[in-house]
Amino acid sequence: MRMVRWPMTESAELRAVDAWWRAANYLTVGQIYLRDNPLARGGIAAEQIKPRLLGHWGTSPGLNLLWAHLNRLICQRESEVLFVCGPGHGGPAMVANAWLDGSYSELFPEVGENEPGMARLFRQFSYPGGIPSHAAPETPGSINEGGELGYSLMHAYGAVLDNPDLIAACVIGDGEAETGPLATSWFGNMFVDPSTDGAVLPILHLNGYKIANPTVLARLGQDELVTLIRSHGYEPIVVAGGEDGEAPDAIHSRLATALDTAFDAIAGIQSEARAGRGPARPRWPMIILRTPKGWTGPRVVDRTRVEGTFHSHQLPLPEVREDPDHRALLEQWLSSYEPESLFPDGEISSQLRSLRPNPELRMSASPHAHGGMVSALVKPEIAGYHVPQDRAGEVESTRVFGGWLAEVMKENPQSFRLFGPDEVLSNRLDEVFRVAERSWSGEIVPTDEHLARRGRVIEMLSEHMMQGLLEGYLLTGRHGLLTSYEAFVHIVDSMFNQHAKWLESAAHVPWRGSLASLTYLLSSHVWRQDHNGFSHQDPGFLNVVVNKQADVVRVYLPPDANTLLATMDHAFGTSDLVNVVVSGKQPQPVWLAGEEAQAHVEAGIGIWDWAGNEPRGPATEPGSEPDVVVACAGDVPTYETIAAAQLLREEAPEIAVRVVNVVDLFRLQSSSLHPHGIDDASFDALFTTTRPVIFAFHGYPSLIHQLTYRRANDARIHVHGFKELGTTTTPFDMVHLNDLDRYGLAIDALERVPGGTEAHPGLTEHWQQARDEARSYAYEHGEDPEFILGWRFRATGC
Amino acid sequence: MRMVRWPMTESAELRAVDAWWRAANYLTVGQIYLRDNPLARGGIAAEQIKPRLLGHWGTSPGLNLLWAHLNRLICQRESEVLFVCGPGHGGPAMVANAWLDGSYSELFPEVGENEPGMARLFRQFSYPGGIPSHAAPETPGSINEGGELGYSLMHAYGAVLDNPDLIAACVIGDGEAETGPLATSWFGNMFVDPSTDGAVLPILHLNGYKIANPTVLARLGQDELVTLIRSHGYEPIVVAGGEDGEAPDAIHSRLATALDTAFDAIAGIQSEARAGRGPARPRWPMIILRTPKGWTGPRVVDRTRVEGTFHSHQLPLPEVREDPDHRALLEQWLSSYEPESLFPDGEISSQLRSLRPNPELRMSASPHAHGGMVSALVKPEIAGYHVPQDRAGEVESTRVFGGWLAEVMKENPQSFRLFGPDEVLSNRLDEVFRVAERSWSGEIVPTDEHLARRGRVIEMLSEHMMQGLLEGYLLTGRHGLLTSYEAFVHIVDSMFNQHAKWLESAAHVPWRGSLASLTYLLSSHVWRQDHNGFSHQDPGFLNVVVNKQADVVRVYLPPDANTLLATMDHAFGTSDLVNVVVSGKQPQPVWLAGEEAQAHVEAGIGIWDWAGNEPRGPATEPGSEPDVVVACAGDVPTYETIAAAQLLREEAPEIAVRVVNVVDLFRLQSSSLHPHGIDDASFDALFTTTRPVIFAFHGYPSLIHQLTYRRANDARIHVHGFKELGTTTTPFDMVHLNDLDRYGLAIDALERVPGGTEAHPGLTEHWQQARDEARSYAYEHGEDPEFILGWRFRATGC
Repeated sequence: MRMVRWPMTESAELRAVDAWWRAANYLTVGQIYLRDNPLARGGIAAEQIKPRLLGHWGTSPGLNLLWAHLNRLICQRESEVLFVCGPGHGGPAMVANAWLDGSYSELFPEVGENEPGMARLFRQFSYPGGIPSHAAPETPGSINEGGELGYSLMHAYGAVLDNPDLIAACVIGDGEAETGPLATSWFGNMFVDPSTDGAVLPILHLNGYKIANPTVLARLGQDELVTLIRSHGYEPIVVAGGEDGEAPDAIHSRLATALDTAFDAIAGIQSEARAGRGPARPRWPMIILRTPKGWTGPRVVDRTRVEGTFHSHQLPLPEVREDPDHRALLEQWLSSYEPESLFPDGEISSQLRSLRPNPELRMSASPHAHGGMVSALVKPEIAGYHVPQDRAGEVESTRVFGGWLAEVMKENPQSFRLFGPDEVLSNRLDEVFRVAERSWSGEIVPTDEHLARRGRVIEMLSEHMMQGLLEGYLLTGRHGLLTSYEAFVHIVDSMFNQHAKWLESAAHVPWRGSLASLTYLLSSHVWRQDHNGFSHQDPGFLNVVVNKQADVVRVYLPPDANTLLATMDHAFGTSDLVNVVVSGKQPQPVWLAGEEAQAHVEAGIGIWDWAGNEPRGPATEPGSEPDVVVACAGDVPTYETIAAAQLLREEAPEIAVRVVNVVDLFRLQSSSLHPHGIDDASFDALFTTTRPVIFAFHGYPSLIHQLTYRRANDARIHVHGFKELGTTTTPFDMVHLNDLDRYGLAIDALERVPGGTEAHPGLTEHWQQARDEARSYAYEHGEDPEFILGWRFRATGC
Repeated sequence: MRMVRWPMTESAELRAVDAWWRAANYLTVGQIYLRDNPLARGGIAAEQIKPRLLGHWGTSPGLNLLWAHLNRLICQRESEVLFVCGPGHGGPAMVANAWLDGSYSELFPEVGENEPGMARLFRQFSYPGGIPSHAAPETPGSINEGGELGYSLMHAYGAVLDNPDLIAACVIGDGEAETGPLATSWFGNMFVDPSTDGAVLPILHLNGYKIANPTVLARLGQDELVTLIRSHGYEPIVVAGGEDGEAPDAIHSRLATALDTAFDAIAGIQSEARAGRGPARPRWPMIILRTPKGWTGPRVVDRTRVEGTFHSHQLPLPEVREDPDHRALLEQWLSSYEPESLFPDGEISSQLRSLRPNPELRMSASPHAHGGMVSALVKPEIAGYHVPQDRAGEVESTRVFGGWLAEVMKENPQSFRLFGPDEVLSNRLDEVFRVAERSWSGEIVPTDEHLARRGRVIEMLSEHMMQGLLEGYLLTGRHGLLTSYEAFVHIVDSMFNQHAKWLESAAHVPWRGSLASLTYLLSSHVWRQDHNGFSHQDPGFLNVVVNKQADVVRVYLPPDANTLLATMDHAFGTSDLVNVVVSGKQPQPVWLAGEEAQAHVEAGIGIWDWAGNEPRGPATEPGSEPDVVVACAGDVPTYETIAAAQLLREEAPEIAVRVVNVVDLFRLQSSSLHPHGIDDASFDALFTTTRPVIFAFHGYPSLIHQLTYRRANDARIHVHGFKELGTTTTPFDMVHLNDLDRYGLAIDALERVPGGTEAHPGLTEHWQQARDEARSYAYEHGEDPEFILGWRFRATGC
């Protein structure tokens, strides 16, 4: 442990810590209440109070206390610390500390380190045109919004993976601790290797109340709480303060000792592990900090106890503008922090400045948090992984992708991780185990496979956990992939939403660097969950995704192995996006050779001449329009569409059929609405302006209508997709149930081509009979008949 | 404890238990593999094997073991036990036990208690046209699908609330235990009152592996695991079996003792509590059952260890049809259970029958699980809660509803509960605390409010937990409401999906009774989260909801207090639905008087003559068409729409404006697509067929297009809604940001009426200026200007 530039005596240190705490508390209260006169010179006038009071006091003094103490440690030890703020509604506290650190004024020069700067700092908070009330992308040092509680500890664990020198100090509110995602993320320590990863220091802040209720953890007996935490693999250090009216500053020496102990324990665990010693699953330190909610704020207001109760959650003094008594209480409250000594002439005192860490170590300026340390991804050439085109073949797309993914992991041994809720093997990505093991600090027994203390794959049966770890990993500048069953990715709808919102907001924050995109590979999808049944059949995540801002979302439905490779190659090269890639794991044809596939993915949408029977020639040439367009997006819909086109080619050959395949779903949207959209002329060249379009879609049909809204004559687009009908049955019966099967598509096409059915009397009935026969056979024999199972693509004669 | 009709000696008992276990295991294997020859007479031929093998063996022997032992207890004690099957992929086990119980053949007479019945039982499982592979609504005794893991313990806790005689034996897989929802639901015991609620007996089944990985809990040290569970308030009883090759039947006496101990402990806690004694938070028993995965199945297959490893998760023998060696192993496996003694001549042996509980106590026939005990809801008249119409007024809708809700809770003191993630007070429902407290078995201190050991409101900061408890409560025949912030209900998207799927499937199961609908009150919605900011602004849950089958989903957007009352009155009277009701909590006008409101909600959609300025007369009369329709759904959009119509009335009075308000969102859809849809003629009567429609919508605009798809001339419908733009700002700035404000609507209307702008030169600019002024004022002063804040409805002169 190095003692660096800190010659202060312990008592001087702790006096500085106390001053910082008071200063940050002052700045927090100021932000919540004042729009002018930040030093309350001559008292506070009603019009200096913000007309709408929007902010949360209750959690803030705890955050400020911890920040002050962590600064002390950072100054002393020159540790790299990331502050993960679970109670993100304590936004004003985060901002206050960043301003005291000096980083706020560096990032926002208009908010200077002086009285006018302080005035601006106060006024802008939670103010129209100002900054959000919660910790947000606009907040220096933050990687965790904390509006939707539950993800702080996952983010912290994700942040320290492969960051051996980083300590993530993760403040967890006792409210947040009640959420499911937080409750399971205590076991994040199962995936940390102390020799190559950093450390998380969880700090459970028990202030006893949520919005209007006590918290569960605060009302366990102390012993029960300590054993609860200990049995998750931690060694809790309990620090309490402010009980029975104890003076606030009495906590400092206890908290300082606790943090010293924790940092020493972390250093001990790491040095043991890095010397090749130590237990596989060390007992990491953590801190339980028990202080009153709204500590140091008004104790009693209008005869109601406020400090230490839920009444301090937002505004201890709600009527400050209207009620002179409340205003007087606010003045007392502010002056209790002794601002004149903290901010002489409105400047930040030298005592406070003494607690500023070296600039690059300030938590409010952590390059880990600001996208300042993004590692470049080494992407191996996909060409070596292409499989031969085989339109009658049977190739598992995800298995092919797995080969390339293994190489990505090998080439980026410290900056790429794969996450899955126990579905990596099931999704046929097992090639990755050639080059990487699964992280596991628990016991390993001979019947286990691919587990190791040091691994690159993380699996736990919690989509929340996988998403949260990946987010934390990406937000601190690394790369990764999350693979999930398609239906169950809905479990993290809300986490996706919040991450997308983070990206949407971060794009407007100039000092935040670009981040690697969050990429999902959704497999075991709706059409091939015939074995697991209805609960596993849901393609609706795409509907959630398309609601986010066009600048941050992309959806891909590669129809085969080579297009999946090209899609992933593209996705891994992007930044600041969410890429959703849906691909099955079941054997199916390889429609396109490697280079064709690459070109198709780049185009994102295209005519597959070989599958249709249009007269040859440029598709856009006048007179070359087909009679019908059959379009498809998704691997199973593509398969059925190709088969439908073949039925039409072979049994109604005079009908000119065009097959359009869509990989990049947003190509369907107008270029005025999405950066990947195409203009109307390009759309019309593909789909014509008048011909019927039979569209076979992977998901809910309405999504295609949503994306093609206001394209020429859009009522001619007839979408077949998931109609929320499913069960345990055969693969063909699944598409049949939802009218997405080849016969259903062919019938629809035939019926919509003028004169189609008249020219082929009985053909509709013939096809109808074929699909009914398939079902009867399946119900009788338990599998699809040979004319379904054995169907193979036959090239057109033309 | 009563000993009823069980004269068996202990050893005879346990021999019967062992026989049951073997029988259920036999039936499980048979279901997974065989489509014929259920007793394997003369060996098994390849064609008697199902061509597609779809089922999960690994978890099943544990489920069967527990069922057998619970039957013993039920026979002895005549306890009412609900079997909640967390590992729902063990579907064949659930079915096997129901058949042994006799209830399967009662519910499905075609599956008799004889060899042909057994053949049918086997064949139908996971077979096209048969039954699902997972526990599902088709599975007798089940309330928990278990496909998407995580919710079993919540469902169990929900089931026992207000069911004082019920014990929910909840089997939790160690895989499921890793999910966030399960991890937090151990604390369900915080909300149980032993004097009026039943008991949950959690049974954590550690079989060590998930799909392809070991589980976290199975790899904790035994001490660590026991203290983990104990610190959640339980007294764990550990039972292990099958270690080091121990014979399976050696476990019976240990497990029997454990279950006896647990049931005795529950009885003791309850009798103490019901005598007015005992601790506020008793230490409930629970069982940790550690057995090998796939126990009693093939130990080694193709030189790979299968029993006791993840290789037994699905099929221990994958190649049975093709590989005679595998088939021989299957024969050995089946015969190891000694089927000839279990099923003499294909009948169920008398030994097995001796373990059948009294018919009404069979877990596979529990009326609690089958909707057989639905209590009638007493609904007080809403008339007494109506507020006077006041179109210039300021009334908090949710507060008005809260008054009626309190009466509902009072009138249904044992069958209605309110659930909220610490948002009941915030959502202004505090009137309920007049009649009910919040359940809380933790410590209660003087600064708490409305907490009691016996309560009717349950609050925990976990949307998952609230949803899961309510589902369990509803699925066992009671009534309730979940209130949440709108944005964060996305957290339970997937739980909603699974519950909707349950309802969709259950509708086709004739022996399942109707259930009360699951009703959401979403408040603190997107438009009034101006203080919490972007993370709290998301109306996308509606998009998730509309994807489910039309038969089970309803969406309501009541525009004021009286329509909210009427909506809730309606929703509470429905069954087998999910009702989503969105309503703000902020002060706003009461547009409709009580009876008007009721009529409007019944119609679901209607013209508000008083807000527009059409010439009087029946709307459908030829020639009476307005120049423009301004439509709205949602309280804030309605407010802005009324204001926009007023702007138009006053400043462009010659334009005939029609105002249409939509409460029941599915009214917009065609009657051919949704039971609440209206036919085209009715739609046209409201919206005309040619006039421009300016639609102000609460959510994402695409949803209105989705619902009005293919209505006459649908390209004339121009929707304003949430464009994913938000931050901490003023309420008016929120609508302005998204172009949903009165000026934006009025401008759009004016510009789309032919000649509108020409007739009013400068009016567009004037309105544009007004909204810009509002923003400038807000940025300057921190609140909306008086001409926004003080806007009041003025009646039209005509």
